[in-house]
Formats: sequence, C-alpha cells, structure tokens
Amino acid sequence: MNVSNSIEVAAARIAEFTHKTPVLNAPELDKKLGCQVFFKCENLQRTGVFKARGATNAVFALSEEQAQYGVATHSSGNHGKALAYAARMRGIPAYIVMPSNASEIKKKGVLEYGGKIIECPPTLADRERYCERVIHTYGAHFIHPFDNADVISGQGTCARELFEQTDSLDVLMVPVGGGGLLGGSILCRDYASPNTAVIACEPEGADDAYRSWRAKKLIPQTNPQTIADGLQTSMSDRTFELMMGGVREVLTCSETGIRQAHELVMNTLKIIIEPSCAVPMACLLSKPDRFEGKRIGMILSGGNYDFRRENVSS
Amino acid sequence: MNVSNSIEVAAARIAEFTHKTPVLNAPELDKKLGCQVFFKCENLQRTGVFKARGATNAVFALSEEQAQYGVATHSSGNHGKALAYAARMRGIPAYIVMPSNASEIKKKGVLEYGGKIIECPPTLADRERYCERVIHTYGAHFIHPFDNADVISGQGTCARELFEQTDSLDVLMVPVGGGGLLGGSILCRDYASPNTAVIACEPEGADDAYRSWRAKKLIPQTNPQTIADGLQTSMSDRTFELMMGGVREVLTCSETGIRQAHELVMNTLKIIIEPSCAVPMACLLSKPDRFEGKRIGMILSGGNYDFRRENVSS
Repeated sequence: MNVSNSIEVAAARIAEFTHKTPVLNAPELDKKLGCQVFFKCENLQRTGVFKARGATNAVFALSEEQAQYGVATHSSGNHGKALAYAARMRGIPAYIVMPSNASEIKKKGVLEYGGKIIECPPTLADRERYCERVIHTYGAHFIHPFDNADVISGQGTCARELFEQTDSLDVLMVPVGGGGLLGGSILCRDYASPNTAVIACEPEGADDAYRSWRAKKLIPQTNPQTIADGLQTSMSDRTFELMMGGVREVLTCSETGIRQAHELVMNTLKIIIEPSCAVPMACLLSKPDRFEGKRIGMILSGGNYDFRRENVSS
Repeated sequence: MNVSNSIEVAAARIAEFTHKTPVLNAPELDKKLGCQVFFKCENLQRTGVFKARGATNAVFALSEEQAQYGVATHSSGNHGKALAYAARMRGIPAYIVMPSNASEIKKKGVLEYGGKIIECPPTLADRERYCERVIHTYGAHFIHPFDNADVISGQGTCARELFEQTDSLDVLMVPVGGGGLLGGSILCRDYASPNTAVIACEPEGADDAYRSWRAKKLIPQTNPQTIADGLQTSMSDRTFELMMGGVREVLTCSETGIRQAHELVMNTLKIIIEPSCAVPMACLLSKPDRFEGKRIGMILSGGNYDFRRENVSS
C-alpha cells in the first residue's frame, strides 16, 4: 500500500471515533524561549492519549473474520486502554494482559472501556506467554502496541492534523518509546510537510533510540530508569528502520529536565500532561540555541497523570 | 450604541490579542450525565482567564487622550492580571491596587505582564481609597472589573465564539461573581442564539445573585464563604439589570459539590481549572434531571489554580 495513502485512509477511518485535538500556543512562553512552539494536545484525545488513533485504525482495519473473536494485547498502560476503547467502538471484546503490579488507575482505565484484564507476573516473557495463551484460547487477534503497520499509520494522523492546523513548521519534536508515533510522524511528514525536520526526543534513562541512531543499528533498551514511563519500551526493527529513514536527529534529556519541563507546560498551558509528554520540551530547554527563531510543532502525547497521587508521594 | 454591535466591535478589536479558545467535549462523560456538555475553555485564554477579553476591549476602546497616562484598577486577582496584560499590549502603564494579603502567585501574575502593584490594607474601603489616590496621582484611567460597558462587551465575545463553534445549544451555563461574564453572555445570546437559555451558577456560600434574582432587587453579598474565590464579588446595578433582563434561572451548589466537580472536570478533560470554574458543573450534577437530553454550553472561566499548593494543604 502507498505510504501516504495509508495515513489518509486511517484519517478517514478513525474520524468518527477520535477528536481533532486543538493546537495551543503561548506567546509569553515563546518570548522566553526565543522560538514559537505549537503544542498538539493529544492529552485531550479520546482515552487521554494519542494511542486511541493507532488502536482505532488497527481495530477497524480488521476484516469481519479477523475481528469476530475480539482483539488482544499486552500492555502496562495506555495502549491497553486505547485498544479496549477501539474494541468497544467496534463492538468486539478486548483482552488486555497486564502485569500484576500495574497501578489501579491503569487497570481502571482498561475496565472503564469494557476491556477484560488478564493478570500476569511482571516480566516481559510472562506478558508474551500469557498473551499467546489468550490468543489461542479465545481466537482473539493480536494488536501490537507499535510494531504494526496500521497502528503506525493511525499514529501518523496526529502529525497530519498538526500540519493542517499549523503552517510551515521548521521542526516537529516527537517523544520516542516504541517508535510508533515517531514512525507515523515521519511517514506523514514525508508527503505532507517535507521541509519539516523531525526530531526524536528521549529520556537519558531510556535512550535506546539515541544509542541505536548513533550506532546505526538497533540496540534494545535494558533496565530503563525514568519517570517518563511511557517511553521505557524498546523500538522494533520496523520502527528503527522508519526512524533511520527520516529523523533529523535524536535528542536526550535529564530527569531533572523532564520534571522542570513537566511543571512548566502544565503551569503555562493549564493542561494536564503525563511526564513522558514533557520530554520534547525538556530537550528544547536543554539546547535553546538550536531552536532560536524556529517554528516548532511539539506533540504532547498524553494526559494520563494522577497529579494528586504524584504530589502526595513527592 | 447598538448592543449586538458592541460585542461584534469587541470581537474585532481584541482578536489580535486573545486566543480563540477550544471547545472540548467528552463523550463518556456525556453518557454518564445523560446530556451533552460543550466546555468553552477560557482557562486556555491569554492570562489564563476570560478576563483578558474584557480588559483588552476596555483598554483598546480608550481614546489616545484617555489612555495616555495608563490604566488603574483594584483587584485581588484575575482582573488585575488581565488589565496588566491589556495595558502592555497597548504600551501603557497599568496600576493595580492589591490587598497586602494577596497571594504571591497573584502578585506574580500582575508583575509578569509589567503591572505596577500598589499594596493596600485588605478592606474594600482601603482598596477604593488607594485606587482613587493612584488615579489622582498618575492620571490613570479607571477600569472597573465588571461595572463597565466595554468590559462586559469584551466578556460577551466568549459566548459569541462558543455559539459559532457549537450549534443549537439548549442551555448556556455561566458562573456569576460580579456578573460581567453573565451580562456579556446574555447580551450575546439575545442576538446570536436567541433559543438558548442562559443559567447563572453560583456557590451557596456567595449567593447574592440567587437571592437578588429571587427578590427581584439587588442584595449585595456580605461575608462570602467559598473556595470559588473568583465568585465572591457582589453584582452591580448594571450587571443585576442585565441578569434580570435575560437569565432563565440562577442555580446554586454546595462546597462539596464544587470540590467534586472540580476534580471530575480536571480528571476527565485533562485540563487545569480554578475552583470557580467548577461551579456550573456542580450545579448540573446537583440537578441532573433538569438537563437530561440537552445540549449544554459551559464556560470554564479560568485556570489560575496552583494545584500543587492546594494539594499540599488539603
């Protein structure tokens, strides 16, 4: 399938089930930063995160036969919730394998949309083993969180909207975890805004994309340490290839930088974002010269953040 | 001046200096509530509050002669910040008389936009006395927070945008403090969406609008007690008249209701709002039958809320 078409097809397919999220701009902040930042607010997306796009596209791309027994995935968080949402929209069951130590708020998110939770021991091997068992038992169709062409095309619709809402972006800054959002953004940029440089942004404590990009080969993440819990995942071969084919550079930032950027964005924009969202801003703040005078698109990926809980514990 | 024209004039005048704020909708919340709610996000407005509209309109409506020595007001909060902002946009000084016990965050808001703070003892009489002195000393033009036709027309541009963004609203719910936003909303409704019922919403602990509406005469507020600190003010004759000429009814809500609604809106919409903003939702939640099946516009008036501080102290 033609790459650009797959994103256009996704946009039409998911329109009914996803929000066209607003783009915010804060002129006073721009003045301080010396550049213009256009925030694409996926924290205001259905399910509170951009992943509703990819999951909805993947679920509705299935044939009747593929979809008849439902869908399954393993996820500790946002993708599970998004898949439960998409499955409910299509009227099919969603089986979400979650580690037994997943937080109550994450379980609640899945249950809220009618997803069925299957608990497993908290290791990747167990997650995959349990997920295979679920697929075998129920005949459910597996939807990977990012290593799936339809998921990636769905995530690409976010950049598509941003380019439509905001002209002539010099730079598009995208957080990178598994690389689905990054891959979709690059594919979309290639046809919709070829002069925009895509910059991937990552925490120093989970910098597999950075190391892989430097080494020009995929180096999986081991033992990630970061509050940006959405970005701990390793990339796949597919998303690594997409990154190498179109990213201008990969930047990293410190944990202190993430905390400061998190607070800055919430206080300035008056929106609730999760720490993973603050990573692109932390990267920008750490290298202000690089962005001087530029028009920057920044994807705020999600808002699933329990600010009360975080505060009590901090 | 023709009433409808004054809002249209205001909209054109302030367009360059204010955001067209997004309207959010949360389908899952709608399902729970049994009605559709369209949230007009003035927490995402310049200065974090709708008052930027009225202040900007009033400041730019001044003649060169009126504006030459700047503007002044007394305010413990949002109007002071908004006036400082508007004055900076016009390039004139703003003198803001603030009570000595105003919070640091509120002072910071005024200073951020270059406003000059004049501290006074924390009584209304002192605020007015100090403000008169400032006007006399500097020759500054007084801009009242709500008892001013241009301020009211400016606030009316918020409803104007909402009607443009969302068709066929059955109800528009507006929080009422001094009544500027309410008055402007009614004036706008009268010509832009005559079939929409305007409902004013107020905390039980500061219910001068409710008592005045019932008694059909202005009963000023004494000793307000509410966490909705933006709604403690008494209405003026002008805003009372506007209310009586066009409000369908005035609803009140409890402090517990405000806290619950505050948390619900922040958690569902992923945006930061101040407690005053939650008052219309608290009113809706207390009388769900009344709103069943309706299309409701709800103005979220502002986002100047220090959620960290609030949490630590709660």
